Order: sequence, then C-alpha cells, then structure tokens
Amino acid sequence: MNHLLTMSELSVQEIQEILKDAEEFACGSVVQPKGKTFVANLFFEASTRTRFSFEVAEKRLGLEVLNFSAESSSVQKGETLYDTVKTLQSIGAKAVVIRHQEDRYFDELRGKINIPILNAGDGCGNHPTQSLLDLLTIKQEFGSFEGLKVAIVGDIRHSRVARSNAEALTRLGASVFFASPKEWEDGQNSFGTYASLDELIPQIDVLMLLRVQHERHDKFAENIMRDYHEQHGLTIEREKRMKSGSIILHPAPVNRGVEIADELVECGRSRIFKQMENGVYVRMAVLKRALSAELGGVNHELLV
Amino acid sequence: MNHLLTMSELSVQEIQEILKDAEEFACGSVVQPKGKTFVANLFFEASTRTRFSFEVAEKRLGLEVLNFSAESSSVQKGETLYDTVKTLQSIGAKAVVIRHQEDRYFDELRGKINIPILNAGDGCGNHPTQSLLDLLTIKQEFGSFEGLKVAIVGDIRHSRVARSNAEALTRLGASVFFASPKEWEDGQNSFGTYASLDELIPQIDVLMLLRVQHERHDKFAENIMRDYHEQHGLTIEREKRMKSGSIILHPAPVNRGVEIADELVECGRSRIFKQMENGVYVRMAVLKRALSAELGGVNHELLV
Amino acid sequence: MNHLLTMSELSVQEIQEILKDAEEFACGSVVQPKGKTFVANLFFEASTRTRFSFEVAEKRLGLEVLNFSAESSSVQKGETLYDTVKTLQSIGAKAVVIRHQEDRYFDELRGKINIPILNAGDGCGNHPTQSLLDLLTIKQEFGSFEGLKVAIVGDIRHSRVARSNAEALTRLGASVFFASPKEWEDGQNSFGTYASLDELIPQIDVLMLLRVQHERHDKFAENIMRDYHEQHGLTIEREKRMKSGSIILHPAPVNRGVEIADELVECGRSRIFKQMENGVYVRMAVLKRALSAELGGVNHELLV
Repeated sequence: MNHLLTMSELSVQEIQEILKDAEEFACGSVVQPKGKTFVANLFFEASTRTRFSFEVAEKRLGLEVLNFSAESSSVQKGETLYDTVKTLQSIGAKAVVIRHQEDRYFDELRGKINIPILNAGDGCGNHPTQSLLDLLTIKQEFGSFEGLKVAIVGDIRHSRVARSNAEALTRLGASVFFASPKEWEDGQNSFGTYASLDELIPQIDVLMLLRVQHERHDKFAENIMRDYHEQHGLTIEREKRMKSGSIILHPAPVNRGVEIADELVECGRSRIFKQMENGVYVRMAVLKRALSAELGGVNHELLV
Repeated sequence: MNHLLTMSELSVQEIQEILKDAEEFACGSVVQPKGKTFVANLFFEASTRTRFSFEVAEKRLGLEVLNFSAESSSVQKGETLYDTVKTLQSIGAKAVVIRHQEDRYFDELRGKINIPILNAGDGCGNHPTQSLLDLLTIKQEFGSFEGLKVAIVGDIRHSRVARSNAEALTRLGASVFFASPKEWEDGQNSFGTYASLDELIPQIDVLMLLRVQHERHDKFAENIMRDYHEQHGLTIEREKRMKSGSIILHPAPVNRGVEIADELVECGRSRIFKQMENGVYVRMAVLKRALSAELGGVNHELLV
Repeated sequence: MNHLLTMSELSVQEIQEILKDAEEFACGSVVQPKGKTFVANLFFEASTRTRFSFEVAEKRLGLEVLNFSAESSSVQKGETLYDTVKTLQSIGAKAVVIRHQEDRYFDELRGKINIPILNAGDGCGNHPTQSLLDLLTIKQEFGSFEGLKVAIVGDIRHSRVARSNAEALTRLGASVFFASPKEWEDGQNSFGTYASLDELIPQIDVLMLLRVQHERHDKFAENIMRDYHEQHGLTIEREKRMKSGSIILHPAPVNRGVEIADELVECGRSRIFKQMENGVYVRMAVLKRALSAELGGVNHELLV
C-alpha cells in the first residue's frame, strides 16, 4: 500500500525516485490509466493551491476526480473520517487525497483502509507534497542537495513543512539552519541549527520562507507581527546581500510585506510561482506511485 | 419520460428490469453515450454517499457531470426549483438528479419539465435509489424475494425508505415486519406488521436497520436515544441469535453504538459497505433507463 | 491576449465575429483542444446560470474545468485576487473565468497576468457574455440590428447589462430606449432615451426587462417594489399591446410577478429560456477566441 503520509517514512531512494518521475512529468511524460480510475479529494480545510494542484495532476493523468468538501457532506451528520473514507472506497475510489485539521489524522485509517492515502496536510504536522515540491525546485536549480546551505525562516514551531523539510534535506546531504522569532522556535526539531537571519543571508543557497499563519494565531502573535517584516522578513535590503545564484522559496499564500517585500515576490531569485508549477509534477509522481497497478510505467512520449 | 420519483410508481417488472441491469453493471457491463451528454446533480441537503454514488455512476457511464449545491447558486436569490431545473434543461442537461428537503418537491415539476428527474431523496418521503440498492443487495444474497422475512427496525415514521421498502418488498413477495420505539411507529404504513425486536431476531432473513436522524429530531428524541441501543439496536448479544445466512443492512451513515454495535458494522453478516458499492450499480441502471435515447442498450463487454 | 472584459473594448467587427461563431456552435460545429487544456472558473458571487453555462461551454469544447468557489479557498487566508489568478496560471490554467463583486476587478490584473481573463460579471459594471447572448438572441430573430427599436426596462442604474447593452446595440445600429423608476435612472448612460413604458410598448421590437436585485437593495427599494409590477413590469395587459413579431428578453433569474407576470415567462414572445441556451453558444465562442492557440479553428462537422 503506497500511502504518502510523512516525509520521514520515505527512504532517500524513494524521495529520489519521486523527484525523478516528477522531472519526467515536467518534461512532458504521460501515463494513462487502463480504465476509468477514480480518485477522491477530501479537504476538511480551505485550500486553493494544494487542492487545485492535486486536481490538475489527477486530470493530467487521466484520472476521474471526486471533489469532497466537508461542508456539504455527511460529516455534518457526525460521520467519522474512517466511515467517510471507507464509503469512498466502497463506491470505487482507488486512492484518496486528504487534508485535515488534526495532526496525524491518518493513524486511525492506516491498516484499515485498502486504498492509498495521500496526505495533503495534517494539522501542524506534515505536508509531504509541499516538501517534495520544495525539493524538486531545489534539485532543478542545483542538480543535487549535497553540501547546500538552506535557511528555513519564520514560524518553525507551527509549520507543517519546517520539520519534514529539515529532516529530508539533512538526509539528502544539505545543511539546514533556522531563523525564527524566539516564541516560534521548535525545541523538538533537531535537524537544523538556529542562527541570526542577517548572518545567514549572505551564506545560504536556499532561503525558505515560512508563512505567518494569521488564521491560526492569537493575540500573542500580533506583537510579533507588528515588526515581523523588519526583524524576520526578506526586506529589499536583505535580498541585496544574498549570494549569487541563491534562490527564494515560499509555500504561499504569501503575506506580501510580511514574510517578503511585495516587490520581491516575483524577483529574479524568487521561485515562488515555479514551486506551484512543480507542485503539479510531484503530485503526478506520488499519484503514479500510489496507483502503480492502475497507471503502469511512465511513458516517455511527450505531451502535445 | 422515465422519471424515477417513488418506488410505488415502478411496476414489479420495472423493478426487476432495473435490478437486472444493475447486476450486469456489477459484472462489468459498459454503455457509452452517443455524444457529450450532460447530467446535473442538484443537492439541497448535505450528502456524501448518495451524491458521490450518483457522480461515480454518471462518470462510469461516460456522462458529463454538473454539480450544483444550493449554497452557491441563484436559489439564494429566491429562484424557484422549477426555474432552476428549467435553466439546467436550457443549458443542455439531459437529466437531473435532485435531493430536496421538501416532501414530494417533484409534484411541482412533473409534466412541466422535459427531462427525466431522478429523485435522490425528498424530505421524509422517498429515496428510491436507496430502496433499489437494498433490493439489489437482498437479491444478490437470496436470488429472489419470495418468502423472505424482512424486519425494518428503528424510526419507521420519519424514514424515507421504511415506507417504500416495505411496499416494494411486499409486492415482490417478501413478508415485512417493523420494530420501532412507540413514538416512531407509522400508522399510515400498512405494508408491515409490528412485532418485538427480540422475537423477530431469530426468524428473519434480512435485518434492515434505519438511521436515527439526530439532525432532524428534537428534545423529545433525546429520551429515546438514551437507551436506544439496548432497547432497539443490534447489540452483540442480539446478533448472536440471528439465523444462519441472515444479513444486516443499514443505509448509512451509521451511528456506531446506537443502531448497531461498533464491532458489528463490518461483521460477517453485515452488507453495509456492499450496499454502498451496489448503490453505484443501481444508479447506473436508473440513469440508463432515464437516458435510453442517449445511452443505447447495455453492451455486454466487460470493463477493463 | 484575447481577454473579454467589457463590451466597449470589442469592435463592431469583433462582436459580429463572436456572434457568427456562436451561431455555428448553435448549429452543431465542434472544436477540439490539441491536448489537455485547463480553464478555471472563479466565482466570488453566487450564480447558477452563468457558472453552469460556462462549465457546459467548456466541457463541450473538450476543456478540463477547475471550479473555484471563494468559500473553500485561500481567499479566506487573505490572498489577493492577483495571487489567486497567478497561482491558477502556475498550475496550468490556460484561461480564467471570473465573477467578482468589485467593479472593474480586472484592472488590477490586466497586463500582469499572461492568460486570458473572461469577465463573468463585475459588481454593477459589466457582464459581456450576458450582453452577447442577448445580441445573439436578437440576431437569430431579426437577422440584423439595423433600425431595431429596443427598450431596456427597470433598474438601469445598478444593472450590469443596461450600460453595455445600450452601447453595443447603438453601435450595431439599433435605437435604444429606457423606462425606469425615477430613482433607478442612470445619468451616465448616454446610449438611450428615457420614455414612458406604456408609450414604448406598442412600438418596440425588443423588450429587455432587467432583474430587480432584491439582494443588492435596501429599505428605499421596498417602496419601489410594492407596486413595481403595475408601474414598471410587463403585465398581461401590456403584453397584449406589443407589436406583432416583437420579443421579450430577461437575464434571469426572474422575479415572477414583479418584472413580468408569472403567466408570461414562457409565453410565445418570451425568449427567456432561449437566452439561456444561447448563453452556452456565446461562451463557447468567447472561449474559442481566448484559446485560439489551443483550440484551432471552428470545425464545420456537426456534433453527433
């Protein structure tokens, strides 16, 4: 059962295989399902990027898409997640993509559901396709991860990707640094070294900005926000001190003028919209991995 | 006009034909529309199972699907149901699937709309595709309905399916019994005999549990709920007294530990998830019936 | 970049070309995309007709559809319209259809987005596909616009289509008249002459009723509403005085008994449901115009 739940569960070799497939999809490779193959997207939280990115990936692969949103479903009648997923399996879904507000929602499903689960984000926990698209964007730029210096900047504690990206990048051979407001440091994440943003800026190859999640934060966060941009954001001044060839990543949606100056969102170093494009390719790759029986091998023909 | 509105309007022969087509779909028969053929799904109430089941059925038949939900439509501007359906017909829908909170919403449409209406549930009234999938599940098990003993248990009064299932099963040759809290008996349903659940349990072939609809009930219902499971539910003890070869049905979503013990939802006698799978096949059959001009006859090739 | 933003930006020749293509689609012409081509529908306001009409048009053209509704998106996280559209472009959308509550929302996108924008309604501003479907319906009836007398009746000031229809009809050679409650006259619209409804009724070829938009109006409007039908609506009596061969248009949803007597909605002169059907054809035509690189020329084969 090729679930995709967390980055930790993928071996380095599996990560490299997913990235390789994604690069082939980026070059126009196509696969076709053998018959009508249904995939259900279950989003219990609002999402534009991830939801549509999965939907485009699914449709590019010729899959039939069932879009489920919590508001108009029997979840309102108190149905459990297990029963909802089991229902989708019963009516023919061959894989299910889930975003859910609870950390590790998938632990109650694993071993009980006979179709692969693709985690599209769980609480403050994991967001493996986001990690994979970050990795793909870095790999396209530098060819490999060996010896790269990556700074992850912002709300390390609540971020779905800080943890899994730090771990994956370390395993792939990169050195990871964190820069964060004191209150948002994460004592449990041992895959990076805390340092000052201004010291990191001229040394790093990849600047990975995290989103300030207004919608998850309280009054306490307002104090941090007031001067976040000056203290912890990518200002125009800081960008000028970045190393030649270095790049900027952000999972989006961007708070313009907070994590990054408005003018820099589409600057030469920014790969923010490139990341979104890559999101489609890595999702095609993990769908192909999950549905290998239905989709067969990658076909090296080019898309028209 | 091959509407599907209530079970009462179907002759025994029509029911048998629908079940026969559904069984062929279950075995992999395929049909293809002659050109792009649109079907609109109008759900004015929350639903997972029925909505997705219709959508899968439509897509398996190669139909183009328009998913309408009341929240994001002109119904908010006060548009009538007739005008909404007429609009969908004007823009090209060849059939419309409707779930609506009003009993017999279709009476205002019948004879005025030139496309078939497939009723996906009206108020406390009818839910013919649920009845048909129950029948299909029984037929797969026992071959025919003649002489079967079926108990329908729970909220007989407010259930969409108690009435139509009791009538259809009687017409098909089965004997129907009801077991219900006093307050939920239905004096108007003459197609079954009330009896004690504990007396019925060892005699019946099919135990058809009804959902306790929290969301429709008031304070009064809370009293019933408190000891519903012990008094009216399928406990572990009761299941042990069931006849060899007998089966359990439930329309779902299940309230685990209320209508049925948590441990029994997927027990050997349970056909609950099988019912969901069968829901797709009966919906394919009624869509084929409604769209005979567009879909042609069932093709006996197997799906890949 | 073949955006479709306002009627004013289309030359008379472009309007005629769109209508010609729409007429061919009405006769069954088909076009096919060269490969999988994605279009995103972004609706920030409720809509049945326009949203489904675009979706049917897109699917008839063989396009892959992404349906975005504001409620379940990152717009809830404060994302700008520009970033949302840029995201859709990044994940592969080749065109975007937008309805938005702000007048001229597209001014902040124009020149910055590399895919065509099709305006499906902006605030009280424009609704070019509605104008085009009105024009198509008139052209089907009268062959040309030269010398036709058209009355636009109702809330001229807040209507998206009064302005753009009046201008387009004038440029195409028709004479335009307005009839309106005093409070809803529009001093800025110079493409028509105000007159009394009862004087206009026997002279006009086309009676274009506007929708009374309850949902946009306040207390003040209630006074107008009370006797709107008698004073400004199409009563049974007024319809009898209409010229032979004249037709009735309404953008719908209709307030039955307000703008038009209930009994007249589907009378012999009414083209209200015909307009909806035509909506699909004009939307196919503007999509074809926007996606000429992907869709190629109109193929004159008939649809099966």
